[in-house]
Amino acid sequence: MFEPIGFESIKQWDRAADVVIIGQGVAGTCAALEAHRQGAKVLVIDRASGGGGASALSSGIFYLGGGTAVQEACGYKDSPDDMARFILASMDPLDPAAARDFALGSAEHFDWLEAQGVPFERSCYKGKAVYLNSSECLLGTGNEKLWPFNLAAQPAPRGHKVAGTGEHAGAVAMQALLAKCEEERIDTIYDASAEALITDAKGAVKGVQVRQLGSTMNILAEKAVIVATGGFNFNPDMVKEHFPQLSPTAEALGTPHNTGEGLMLAEAAGATTSGMDGLIATASIYPPAQLIKGIVVNANGERFVAEDSYHGRTAAFIMEQPEQQAYLIVDSEIFAYPDVPTARHELVDGFETVAEMEQRLNIPKGALQRTLDDYNKDAANGEDAYLHKDKEWLKPLDKGPWAAFDISFRKSCYLYITLGGLRTDRFGRCLDHEGKAVPGLYAAGACSAHIPRDGKSYASGMSLGPGSYFGRRAGQHAAGARG
Amino acid sequence: MFEPIGFESIKQWDRAADVVIIGQGVAGTCAALEAHRQGAKVLVIDRASGGGGASALSSGIFYLGGGTAVQEACGYKDSPDDMARFILASMDPLDPAAARDFALGSAEHFDWLEAQGVPFERSCYKGKAVYLNSSECLLGTGNEKLWPFNLAAQPAPRGHKVAGTGEHAGAVAMQALLAKCEEERIDTIYDASAEALITDAKGAVKGVQVRQLGSTMNILAEKAVIVATGGFNFNPDMVKEHFPQLSPTAEALGTPHNTGEGLMLAEAAGATTSGMDGLIATASIYPPAQLIKGIVVNANGERFVAEDSYHGRTAAFIMEQPEQQAYLIVDSEIFAYPDVPTARHELVDGFETVAEMEQRLNIPKGALQRTLDDYNKDAANGEDAYLHKDKEWLKPLDKGPWAAFDISFRKSCYLYITLGGLRTDRFGRCLDHEGKAVPGLYAAGACSAHIPRDGKSYASGMSLGPGSYFGRRAGQHAAGARG
Repeated sequence: MFEPIGFESIKQWDRAADVVIIGQGVAGTCAALEAHRQGAKVLVIDRASGGGGASALSSGIFYLGGGTAVQEACGYKDSPDDMARFILASMDPLDPAAARDFALGSAEHFDWLEAQGVPFERSCYKGKAVYLNSSECLLGTGNEKLWPFNLAAQPAPRGHKVAGTGEHAGAVAMQALLAKCEEERIDTIYDASAEALITDAKGAVKGVQVRQLGSTMNILAEKAVIVATGGFNFNPDMVKEHFPQLSPTAEALGTPHNTGEGLMLAEAAGATTSGMDGLIATASIYPPAQLIKGIVVNANGERFVAEDSYHGRTAAFIMEQPEQQAYLIVDSEIFAYPDVPTARHELVDGFETVAEMEQRLNIPKGALQRTLDDYNKDAANGEDAYLHKDKEWLKPLDKGPWAAFDISFRKSCYLYITLGGLRTDRFGRCLDHEGKAVPGLYAAGACSAHIPRDGKSYASGMSLGPGSYFGRRAGQHAAGARG
Repeated sequence: MFEPIGFESIKQWDRAADVVIIGQGVAGTCAALEAHRQGAKVLVIDRASGGGGASALSSGIFYLGGGTAVQEACGYKDSPDDMARFILASMDPLDPAAARDFALGSAEHFDWLEAQGVPFERSCYKGKAVYLNSSECLLGTGNEKLWPFNLAAQPAPRGHKVAGTGEHAGAVAMQALLAKCEEERIDTIYDASAEALITDAKGAVKGVQVRQLGSTMNILAEKAVIVATGGFNFNPDMVKEHFPQLSPTAEALGTPHNTGEGLMLAEAAGATTSGMDGLIATASIYPPAQLIKGIVVNANGERFVAEDSYHGRTAAFIMEQPEQQAYLIVDSEIFAYPDVPTARHELVDGFETVAEMEQRLNIPKGALQRTLDDYNKDAANGEDAYLHKDKEWLKPLDKGPWAAFDISFRKSCYLYITLGGLRTDRFGRCLDHEGKAVPGLYAAGACSAHIPRDGKSYASGMSLGPGSYFGRRAGQHAAGARG
């Protein structure tokens, strides 16, 4: 059903442009601006009745670094090489050349975003947070400070949140970018679904067939089509196929339009995908940061992940535990409720003794006590010899009573996004099985494979950051393609 | 077809033992010796007409460290903590507690192996090799010296090869262990296939139904059954299901008996598996070591893996490249043929110019030249800023003529073993979906999930090392189980 239509079979072209962009989220918008400024006639189509896509619903964090204006203003030293090293060491990227290109171009890209009117404060949030209800910009949003990645590169916060609260920051970013598109009079058609790509006899992509309000339009793309249609979180069949481990309590982030059709259209035209089993899920144990001083254990009462891991990493390890069960254990000194309302982590209870807690959690007798004994000894020594949690978060959990929160994957509510997608090069070109560019076909944003391939290595902002960056690259290259 | 048989339905028991062990490779042998020495009556069965299994066919490398007698004799400092840190940093183990237990017990385990008569020289091979035709013991067999893992733990060679050439070392090890079993009069039945486990009404494993020479035997296991049946490399259906990316030119290592039945019998009795898509494949570019000074590029002429990676890691990255194609590029100064006869890496040709080489390899014009220019600049500076190959292996590849070897996954012969298998705890107990031990059921060796989950993190010796170690643990624990 996603097969491309033959160019020669099209009798009538309803519209024409140099570059046709499917999807007006952050990647599509950035692609449109750059292609337009290269002199290309650009046409953007979107299934929704307005632009923004999942980007506008996001919390507006761009992963950027290498010495951005905000990093400098806040007194953080970062270098393009440190950012590249961190990405290489923690993410084993499929295309290290593209990942490095992103790191090297990142600070300039920040300036570009700001020049488009995307507002960023010169401020930093120093605590541990997942989601900021205030307007501070800079925030540590990944595993930069986590052992062993902190050895590979000088850690620096690289989450750049748009000025606005977490609830609105994504929309603020998209409002600015969409206003720029309007200002530059970039043609846009809403309520328009791409139904098929149009390819010539050589397999080059030459246009898009679009369904809008009951009628079909054929749009000629003189130079290229850029697919920027977002993830496939909202396609139940694909989610079921690629993520059999998902819990019914998990919830997809994004818009209902994120159904993966763009990806399938591109695949049918010869593009390939990568990392389709990649997923980042999150239901953080922090804030407040003091909870990181607790321990996370499985149904056998054993620790399995350093608790100062980025929340997506912790979630990925929880998903692998038996029955995907996990508990956050705290003592009275650090007790607090996890302040992540979406997560719905429930307090199991408070316990006067560890033995009672073991019994209630159905942990084998003595197992949690053993874990606590080992941990407390290490914490007292200031070194977590087992999982290498940073000493900043070490304190013996010996001030009873104790409490346990159920943070199980199948009980709490984990929010997730998909990470796999179309395989692209650093110019945003879709690659075929031989690694060669499919002529006239580009992709950017969440419909293309993310740099991090799984939740263990994801960092918040690795969707908007590379999505906007490679959106621009795709727009620039597409405007020159076959031109 | 692998469903367990009800205990109550068995009318006649042909044999009885405390601990029944299925499979007489390294894990089964070590399990047998330990269970026997705990006072258990042990019975070992094997499908072959003699013991040894895939272990006897292997090159006899045990991954061990933490300050073994050989490491000390050869002047290498290693500590249990360094070994644990290396494993944690490079392998993200599913069960870090078991991985740490292995690191902490590793030096003692070496002594134990030696006490069983497994011979190890007090010698070290200093070069880069995959397979030693000489009898030296110690050899670097993993990513210990590779960035960024070398930052997480003090590197040390941990491959301990049994005294004997690579062709015979596995057999030498198994001869010693089998001789010990014979000396201690451990009962063994050969040519005997386990056809079903026997379980009681509560799901506890109570015995094994065995087919031998046309007749069926019911063997009562008073305490436990230990499955030690090896990997599933030789089960074409399972291989096809779990490794769609395998090349027809790839060849499985092991014996034709490695068909995964033990794993399936255990699964049918309530055990779970983990990491079934894990694979280590190898067709090394070295020795000779000078070839590591070359570069490995894909069909687009781009580097994608540090060439000083462990050969299994390089292979894993090659498998991800477009069409799984890769070339080793060298200049005249380092030219040599890769001395890995099994790999069948073919010389494409020698070339007077890089442009000719690009054309012949069907690499986009100018792409390989760009890669070489960048690399040569970095090499001259003594720092591979892109992929962080150690400076020991950096030299500008500017002494033409150049040569290219085709090391593509679908062209060369990559040897592979499967890494996934039954999920066990540090005592070798099989775990059910809730992470609870299946009563009376243990597993060890290649039928259980390896600590490294993929070729990117594998180290040679991570089959025999943990296989023998957790075989012992299983034997010890099983002898005491329900006892």
